[in-house]
Amino acid sequence: MPITSERGNLMPDSPIRKLVPLADRAKEMGRKVFHLNIGQPDVPTPQNALDAIRNIDRKILEYSPSEGIKSFREKLAAYYHTFKIDVSADDIIITTGGSEAVTFAFLACLDPGDEIIVPEPAYANYTAFAILAGAVIKSIPSKIEEGFALPPIEEFEKLITPRTKGILICNPNNPTGYLYNRSEMNQIRDMVKKYDLYLFSDEVYREFCYTGAPYISAFHLQGIEQNVVLIDSVSKRYSECGLRVGALITKNKALKKNVMKFCQARLSPPLIGQIAAEASLENNQDYLHDVYEEYVERRKFLIDGLNRINGVYSPIPMGAFYTVARLPVDDADVFCAWLLSDFEYENQTIFMAPASGFYTTPGYGKDEVRIAYVLKKEDLATSLKILEEALKVYPGSKVRQMVTVAEG
Amino acid sequence: MPITSERGNLMPDSPIRKLVPLADRAKEMGRKVFHLNIGQPDVPTPQNALDAIRNIDRKILEYSPSEGIKSFREKLAAYYHTFKIDVSADDIIITTGGSEAVTFAFLACLDPGDEIIVPEPAYANYTAFAILAGAVIKSIPSKIEEGFALPPIEEFEKLITPRTKGILICNPNNPTGYLYNRSEMNQIRDMVKKYDLYLFSDEVYREFCYTGAPYISAFHLQGIEQNVVLIDSVSKRYSECGLRVGALITKNKALKKNVMKFCQARLSPPLIGQIAAEASLENNQDYLHDVYEEYVERRKFLIDGLNRINGVYSPIPMGAFYTVARLPVDDADVFCAWLLSDFEYENQTIFMAPASGFYTTPGYGKDEVRIAYVLKKEDLATSLKILEEALKVYPGSKVRQMVTVAEG
Repeated sequence: MPITSERGNLMPDSPIRKLVPLADRAKEMGRKVFHLNIGQPDVPTPQNALDAIRNIDRKILEYSPSEGIKSFREKLAAYYHTFKIDVSADDIIITTGGSEAVTFAFLACLDPGDEIIVPEPAYANYTAFAILAGAVIKSIPSKIEEGFALPPIEEFEKLITPRTKGILICNPNNPTGYLYNRSEMNQIRDMVKKYDLYLFSDEVYREFCYTGAPYISAFHLQGIEQNVVLIDSVSKRYSECGLRVGALITKNKALKKNVMKFCQARLSPPLIGQIAAEASLENNQDYLHDVYEEYVERRKFLIDGLNRINGVYSPIPMGAFYTVARLPVDDADVFCAWLLSDFEYENQTIFMAPASGFYTTPGYGKDEVRIAYVLKKEDLATSLKILEEALKVYPGSKVRQMVTVAEG
Repeated sequence: MPITSERGNLMPDSPIRKLVPLADRAKEMGRKVFHLNIGQPDVPTPQNALDAIRNIDRKILEYSPSEGIKSFREKLAAYYHTFKIDVSADDIIITTGGSEAVTFAFLACLDPGDEIIVPEPAYANYTAFAILAGAVIKSIPSKIEEGFALPPIEEFEKLITPRTKGILICNPNNPTGYLYNRSEMNQIRDMVKKYDLYLFSDEVYREFCYTGAPYISAFHLQGIEQNVVLIDSVSKRYSECGLRVGALITKNKALKKNVMKFCQARLSPPLIGQIAAEASLENNQDYLHDVYEEYVERRKFLIDGLNRINGVYSPIPMGAFYTVARLPVDDADVFCAWLLSDFEYENQTIFMAPASGFYTTPGYGKDEVRIAYVLKKEDLATSLKILEEALKVYPGSKVRQMVTVAEG
């Protein structure tokens, strides 16, 4: 039997999905599982998009252009203009989800052995895509006590080598919900300029900024326009995760040419997804406003609730729809698995993503979890109750131990 | 400005798509362009699939499982059983088109520097996906005079090194239409077994076998079940290229585990595409029969027509919907570009794929083109007329030169 690739062996299991078999088993046992593990909103997809799919009157579901449908790219450019992101349809390449945008960005910018610097915790699949491309991620931990702010720029500079080709940020951040401020973005800009690096900027959560602080796109940073590779996706803002439609945006013509080779090799992004995503861009202000208001409520409700549970701490996320919370447990990986396999509260349990998978620095995130507040308030309320009850009885709970000691 | 990756620079331009800008310009000038360059059938998508899309009653277009929707995989397994391919739903991983299936197969089986042997001409994007994965393709040319039959097995053995990890075949073949016979398949099986190689078998054209000769799947070969990686796609058989739904099928559990890591990293294949593809599997016998009859007709019409043109030669393809034909031209790359940029017959022209891009051996295919007979007979008739007229006046035409000499 031939052996599998070392590259594949090195790929991390997804911290978001690796516990899915345990969740499936819990469901088979008739248990209700609340999915806080994955950024899959329970918010309805815009009616515009559903109608566009229903009204497709094509007889042949043919390939679209490798770079995506032109009218869609034009409407996307107009959408970015509303955020003062000055890009044209020609700068936009439609991809199969944001995942493919990251993958193609790495493949077209980085060669095996090239390095990128990433503040962590970070979206776990960046590591997977880097391994896929043979690239090396050098991480700088940000700290829960500092609300996961950008680590000092000197920490980045310490990691720069002749192989450093880029910096990757996610803003607003998945998993922490942090939103980089003007001063932080300027520091990133200066470093990118000084060392002539790519700036990979994943901005799929731009619609979700809660504090009144401005969202600063990488494309707002002057003087590094040729260095920026913007990653986008319609999955989160329109609750269209299943469509698999994202975008890679670059003003760098040489890079665009390179990316397009990967695009042509895979022929085209999904046709129906593009049609639905294009329709989502039309008259969507009310939709986006309602969704925004909903997440404002959920965020407040979840974070307040978490911080009220004995031993739990969550910073207040400024954007996206995640938080990384610290739990009073020995090992969040074990705890999250235990919740699915051994615990139930009124025949219900919760599925959270252990945060260790969002760090590459060993030992980090051991008592942290990522929680996606993608469920409606009633479900979040039940989830909080389940978490609270679980921490009372989980064998590795520090709260439980304290109780035991107090009782003893 | 940071430099692009050497890997991307090495990626070939798609021979199928690299002339698209010239075709676009011809269309802008009001010219009708017949697309013989790409395997995009003009055959309607099954009504079942269109209806399934129209009748989607979900409110949220959510992620599907990373390995694809279970009911779809179960129906696919039943479909394969009709070809005596003994696989279960668990052996099937749904991918974003056959393209992703090939990519993930290479990534999960091969490490940078690993080698695979491929008879050529071969589907051009295999090379692209190999470069993406850092793998090396060693090619063995098959010959137009022999109808592109499998080259002698000794030629394969000459190329085997300690880095050889697999053999890749496409059967029925894109671009040649060749269908491997029992003796050839047994030779492949023996070699795979002897050297313990992966057998990557792209079988997306299995519905299109025209000569009564049996279609032999790689999974029909006994004793190498753990070595076979079958690539499939719904694009061609249901005219669903735009859906981006394919499959990677393996009975090798270690390999499946490895592939699943890449699947989880990209989260999920397209939801709507899977719904439509699943519906296409229901009561589809009449549809497939009608499509088959249509291609039988087109094949006969095209090949007869090609061989009637002065100086043109096409073998008779046994399967798929392509042929590689030899043309009386100096350079098929130049000729194909010239057809789009400099030629018109009654304000129409044709777009063919130069065959050089389907070979990696330098100099091969210089006077060959791949023609996809994906258009209805009237369009093929016009295309043949355009080709005939073009060869009379193309500056690098050998027919034209003969005429000139005769006239002189």
